Amino acid sequence: MNNLPVDQLCELFLQTINQYSALEKSTHTYDVEPKIYLAEIHTIAAIRAHENINITDLAKLQGTSRSAASQAVSRLVKKGFIEKRVSPDTDNEVILSLTEKGEKVSDLHDKQHILLREKLTAILNKYPPETVDILSSLAIDVQKMWKELS
Amino acid sequence: MNNLPVDQLCELFLQTINQYSALEKSTHTYDVEPKIYLAEIHTIAAIRAHENINITDLAKLQGTSRSAASQAVSRLVKKGFIEKRVSPDTDNEVILSLTEKGEKVSDLHDKQHILLREKLTAILNKYPPETVDILSSLAIDVQKMWKELS
Repeated sequence: MNNLPVDQLCELFLQTINQYSALEKSTHTYDVEPKIYLAEIHTIAAIRAHENINITDLAKLQGTSRSAASQAVSRLVKKGFIEKRVSPDTDNEVILSLTEKGEKVSDLHDKQHILLREKLTAILNKYPPETVDILSSLAIDVQKMWKELS
Repeated sequence: MNNLPVDQLCELFLQTINQYSALEKSTHTYDVEPKIYLAEIHTIAAIRAHENINITDLAKLQGTSRSAASQAVSRLVKKGFIEKRVSPDTDNEVILSLTEKGEKVSDLHDKQHILLREKLTAILNKYPPETVDILSSLAIDVQKMWKELS
């Protein structure tokens, strides 16, 4: 393989990630107070999808550091979207769940998610059927490469 | 296509992007003062690869807002890695270039880039040869989808 396509792919990859990061920092137009960022909605959605998750597992799931996840959780507790509870199983573990307000935001996000999934599915359907598997496997390979670097 | 693989792909995509963002916020171990972040090195590398680029085009290339690019440039000018000059063609345009210190960091980054490109090429070689084209085209489709949303 010649170097050029890989370099161009890297440049395109950086560009796409930066665009996504800009999106994550934008506030959502949902009719809730206080204003909420897309990145925060994804944390709320992750907690709904993985009931009673703890902060360590949330960090792993989201691919962030434990301290970043912990800060995000504290902010969302303060904003009233999630709550920390003591695990019913072990009394020294904190688990996370949504408040009523968190559930409401999550419902709004789910509706939008369905729309996005349709758009994304339409895009993916233009490509060979093995594309989803290739992308998944590639993401795992790249994550492994990063881990070896750091 | 059933919904599950797309949802899993989205979760994996978010996880990969977050891991990458954490990397970008880490400081580099290059022997330069002041300390420099990976995201800053990518801006320096982009300026070297696109000589005499202006801030508007740099923002487009990196997929960030003009104001984010402008802030990043000011920080790097202050740190002594890049300099702003008046374009030799039009006297109301500011163009960007590297200082000697910026060139030095860029050389170090290039060496590391060659290593990374080798690793990435080895990964990509495990996949069908059309994968690079599929990824490039998919990135452009997804960027277009985001543009329509915002």
